[in-house]
Amino acid sequence: MIKVGIVGGSGYGGGELLRLLSVHPKVKIKFVTSEKYKNLPIYFIHPNLRHLNLSFTSIKEIGEKVDLLFIALPNGVSMEYINKLIPLTKKIIDLGADFRLENEKDWFYWYQKKHQNPNLLKKFVYGLPELYREKIRKSSFVACPGCEATVSILALYPAVKENIIKENPIIIDAKMSSSQSGKNYSLATHHPERAGCVRSYAPAGHRHTAEIEMVFKKVNPKIKVDISATAIDMVRGILVTIHTFLKKEASVDEIKNIYKKYYQKEKFIRIIGQNIGIYRYPEPKILTGTNFCDIGFAIDKRSNRLVIIAAIDNLTKGTAGQAVQCMNIMYNLKEDLGLTDLGLHPI
Amino acid sequence: MIKVGIVGGSGYGGGELLRLLSVHPKVKIKFVTSEKYKNLPIYFIHPNLRHLNLSFTSIKEIGEKVDLLFIALPNGVSMEYINKLIPLTKKIIDLGADFRLENEKDWFYWYQKKHQNPNLLKKFVYGLPELYREKIRKSSFVACPGCEATVSILALYPAVKENIIKENPIIIDAKMSSSQSGKNYSLATHHPERAGCVRSYAPAGHRHTAEIEMVFKKVNPKIKVDISATAIDMVRGILVTIHTFLKKEASVDEIKNIYKKYYQKEKFIRIIGQNIGIYRYPEPKILTGTNFCDIGFAIDKRSNRLVIIAAIDNLTKGTAGQAVQCMNIMYNLKEDLGLTDLGLHPI
Amino acid sequence: MIKVGIVGGSGYGGGELLRLLSVHPKVKIKFVTSEKYKNLPIYFIHPNLRHLNLSFTSIKEIGEKVDLLFIALPNGVSMEYINKLIPLTKKIIDLGADFRLENEKDWFYWYQKKHQNPNLLKKFVYGLPELYREKIRKSSFVACPGCEATVSILALYPAVKENIIKENPIIIDAKMSSSQSGKNYSLATHHPERAGCVRSYAPAGHRHTAEIEMVFKKVNPKIKVDISATAIDMVRGILVTIHTFLKKEASVDEIKNIYKKYYQKEKFIRIIGQNIGIYRYPEPKILTGTNFCDIGFAIDKRSNRLVIIAAIDNLTKGTAGQAVQCMNIMYNLKEDLGLTDLGLHPI
Amino acid sequence: MIKVGIVGGSGYGGGELLRLLSVHPKVKIKFVTSEKYKNLPIYFIHPNLRHLNLSFTSIKEIGEKVDLLFIALPNGVSMEYINKLIPLTKKIIDLGADFRLENEKDWFYWYQKKHQNPNLLKKFVYGLPELYREKIRKSSFVACPGCEATVSILALYPAVKENIIKENPIIIDAKMSSSQSGKNYSLATHHPERAGCVRSYAPAGHRHTAEIEMVFKKVNPKIKVDISATAIDMVRGILVTIHTFLKKEASVDEIKNIYKKYYQKEKFIRIIGQNIGIYRYPEPKILTGTNFCDIGFAIDKRSNRLVIIAAIDNLTKGTAGQAVQCMNIMYNLKEDLGLTDLGLHPI
Repeated sequence: MIKVGIVGGSGYGGGELLRLLSVHPKVKIKFVTSEKYKNLPIYFIHPNLRHLNLSFTSIKEIGEKVDLLFIALPNGVSMEYINKLIPLTKKIIDLGADFRLENEKDWFYWYQKKHQNPNLLKKFVYGLPELYREKIRKSSFVACPGCEATVSILALYPAVKENIIKENPIIIDAKMSSSQSGKNYSLATHHPERAGCVRSYAPAGHRHTAEIEMVFKKVNPKIKVDISATAIDMVRGILVTIHTFLKKEASVDEIKNIYKKYYQKEKFIRIIGQNIGIYRYPEPKILTGTNFCDIGFAIDKRSNRLVIIAAIDNLTKGTAGQAVQCMNIMYNLKEDLGLTDLGLHPI
Repeated sequence: MIKVGIVGGSGYGGGELLRLLSVHPKVKIKFVTSEKYKNLPIYFIHPNLRHLNLSFTSIKEIGEKVDLLFIALPNGVSMEYINKLIPLTKKIIDLGADFRLENEKDWFYWYQKKHQNPNLLKKFVYGLPELYREKIRKSSFVACPGCEATVSILALYPAVKENIIKENPIIIDAKMSSSQSGKNYSLATHHPERAGCVRSYAPAGHRHTAEIEMVFKKVNPKIKVDISATAIDMVRGILVTIHTFLKKEASVDEIKNIYKKYYQKEKFIRIIGQNIGIYRYPEPKILTGTNFCDIGFAIDKRSNRLVIIAAIDNLTKGTAGQAVQCMNIMYNLKEDLGLTDLGLHPI
Repeated sequence: MIKVGIVGGSGYGGGELLRLLSVHPKVKIKFVTSEKYKNLPIYFIHPNLRHLNLSFTSIKEIGEKVDLLFIALPNGVSMEYINKLIPLTKKIIDLGADFRLENEKDWFYWYQKKHQNPNLLKKFVYGLPELYREKIRKSSFVACPGCEATVSILALYPAVKENIIKENPIIIDAKMSSSQSGKNYSLATHHPERAGCVRSYAPAGHRHTAEIEMVFKKVNPKIKVDISATAIDMVRGILVTIHTFLKKEASVDEIKNIYKKYYQKEKFIRIIGQNIGIYRYPEPKILTGTNFCDIGFAIDKRSNRLVIIAAIDNLTKGTAGQAVQCMNIMYNLKEDLGLTDLGLHPI
Repeated sequence: MIKVGIVGGSGYGGGELLRLLSVHPKVKIKFVTSEKYKNLPIYFIHPNLRHLNLSFTSIKEIGEKVDLLFIALPNGVSMEYINKLIPLTKKIIDLGADFRLENEKDWFYWYQKKHQNPNLLKKFVYGLPELYREKIRKSSFVACPGCEATVSILALYPAVKENIIKENPIIIDAKMSSSQSGKNYSLATHHPERAGCVRSYAPAGHRHTAEIEMVFKKVNPKIKVDISATAIDMVRGILVTIHTFLKKEASVDEIKNIYKKYYQKEKFIRIIGQNIGIYRYPEPKILTGTNFCDIGFAIDKRSNRLVIIAAIDNLTKGTAGQAVQCMNIMYNLKEDLGLTDLGLHPI
């Protein structure tokens, strides 16, 4: 059994991690920290986890070493604690943004804050299994991608790699859910204000641009992406509608075949496309609680526009599920162990 | 492996059954029927079941015998087909209303239709495991309770059995979801009309009264229940707020202790009650996809009113999950085999 | 023109008042106070009021006398300010709870706080126009009823007055929206937690019991009401399902006739009941933004239960609309002046 | 008083028209037709219109001539009836798609059906007041724009006219509500399927492309627009996020100034942009029931992308409100007569 600890377990990412790890056949949870809720039973905060007989502890009271530490702290916090945490564990998987970027300057540009621990940036592997599986397997430090970056990179990768789309514009129009803003409440997340909204909260300048371009610039330095993020009345899930332009004419079937070449062995990536029924393109709601990333396509022949549509559950494939997937790889377990939820319908 | 067939697999109950059975370790699905969608892949209708390489067949083309037949047909339809289905199987679990009531006259009173197969009524056992586990184990014909009856009976049973509440009024104020009305669409279920509604669709005369009173009249013939059902903007789930009056003063803790006595060994029943946090009483949303029935209490001392609050997922514990639970019992399997989903939070 | 001031204009009640008063043909708004948002333009907080060229001022900087002061402060706050406010105005309409109850002891019992200004309690008239129109007309101090009390009293009044229902139980099962909890945000109102909820937030002991019983005990001292309040995924609106028991058998038509006798001249009360279409009973969503209270009925013959169903918009008829209605009465204006919104469909 | 008739009054556009016209001070409604609901009271179908003492009649039984006929029939139907309707009226405002395009070939290309009445195409004026006010004033035949075209054209017009954005790509990413699909129900609009969806129903090839390009090609023949439409869980409203690229660098303030030049006198167009509060960009929910079109901007300096964000209520400014606005112009009334709803908050 892998002995794991979770630092920062009261947020939504931490809760999803607990859901997955608490029934994972190869994992034993040793501790979960929360400063705000220390000593309270976990199910007071995560009401779906009544089966877990465990309370939060303070990060200051971690008493034992573990094999693997998951860090689910707010952006900018894990880089402050990391030096104290490293001695407590053999491996670290960080769910936050602090160690995703390789470059200190980029971090400053996008997060407007000096990085506290730039030396560690190079040590962390970007935890996107479908692209970096072998690096993850060999690493002891993994930084999981942001949810919006995860779905966008997976949706674009074969097209960029095969050089079938123009380097720009690549416009990612993302439809976002409220759990993406985390557990901190404000007037903006107050139900009467947030319900029913279609809110352009980041029409330009979304931070995940940095991760996406970091990945793609290695493939093609000319790649440039533009993100616009709109919050809608949804608790979990992301849908990205990515507007790209084909270098040469192609059919949807040709595009699908290219993607299948890349993803046919991937358990969590599904190329969607059916011309009967309601669910012809990816939809986040039927992915709730699953680790799938569904990808579909439409082509506008008038302009040679290739629309790539992709959906995930931001808390599962976008956060905690991906972290467990990385863990499975790091321990040479079956990659979908503990990640076999199918999703519900209707929902 | 138990070889099962599903008759009527395109509805929401059938879909949920397929979700559960397709990953049940002791089950092999042999066929699924649908007249409307015959020959179409199952995932065209149930988009969460892309892992299932199976198409619908016509009920007329069932080619093989099975160990167990699940029937998920609309009310009034299974009683027409049942005689043709019995020879195809060793056991039957019916998810519909046709064989729930013992009494032909009651069936006519509540469903306003002459029963086509009254002789079979006595053969069927009412498939509520927490009350009739041993009968179910020995039976080959099980009729699963309606969702609203399931949650109401489980919520009331210890109180009625222990004779702590007045026989009437017992008012069940039920908050209902749209999946309860099934897959048949109409103007009433059209999104612009159904979204945001708080609709008194059965303020009096709800049919599940018949099942609930059938169960309780055996315990205390004076019991009478009144149901009012209100549809709200929710896809899955039921919450019942049951207004009863205590015969003698009691505290919430005393009530909880009585209920724990009845339900402490039940894997799917949880007595809820915490005075910290948001989820102090049962809530359906965190039960989505689970087989749990959560029950909680409040007492109004001014009037000696005991409010019993209970929640389920109508498609899981209220329909397909309960059917699988019955199957597990009938085959002496672990009762929660294939029914271990924890629920999601946030959702 | 009536010169009005609004004390406490940044909440939802204050915002709705501003919406109504800003286009009322007989009103001139002189000032609106908010400590938190002072000096900010009103439309920053109330984005639907971009036509209003007005900023918030501090209560300490009110510089001019008005004819009428609306107070829309949190419960327990207006009784602290009231002595300073009285000299500034000829008349006061308070939208909060502080002056609704006639009896100091009742206030303490329900609000668990000593009343700071008990002498004023007798001066205030309970501002429910359909019952106390003439008192309101003659008064200079009006305390508008709570939203849940408004709809419940209007729904029950003719039945109580005509003595056709038993004095108890009278069970008010209320379905509540998020705007009822006001503008203060917390984890409980955070969108991921509050969306999709069916939350028993006050299954017993709701404070509006005090107002309802205060009104009805004058008609029949034996009347006792029990409230259970459940929060659902709705921003505006209340639906009450009131379970009562008839003293003698009656038909829905007979009940309707009794109610019509009381309410036929009331512009804002509509007796609903149609046997075709979807909207057969009252529904809050189609009352959004209107001052209507819709009332309908169902009878359960098996138990002689009369179910009274009533709906309002909690911010309009339940708060600000009713306050404007009171103002119109106090100034001998047409009672629906400025209150003619019809409601939207679909919505 | 203008005597009006409405042909096709049972749909959502017809209902909204009835809401607006029934309280319009210069209008007298003479008849409303519906074949499906003929002889039924209007409020059975439009439950917000209980004040209207009027029933539907059949189109075959129209007995009197009117000054103005509104046609709110499904696409492809009004062109069949139009010849019979012209003799009954002096003027026509058509809310459907049949007479929006000037060119018969374009109609065939986008609607895949031969136009039945191509000679009339040139007679109709495109009823977008902000662009074609004077033509509308002089015309007797007005075809109101589609909702998605309305908001997109208004959002783009100054930028195209001033030649500040590249001619392509102009990508309109539209977030759509369920009322846009009209009153015809199907499995796709069934609440359990449609609720919570983020559905790419027209990722390419949206028909309103035709109207938008028709308008802009007159200004600049090189303009080409790409639409992707995604249905979200919303009953009323559209938000468009339009991705364009500036020819020269500009600031948001410079863009706003250009737009203000065009729209400063327009009563229904508001340039939004504030850096405090939640509602910093246009949002459809606070426009519910209003005739406003709100427009805002963001600039992505890295790519010189100008994101234009615009919102309307699809049934008001997008359909019936715009039709009433046209009527007001055609009769030289105040342009906002009967169109002064402010919108609600919270909602």
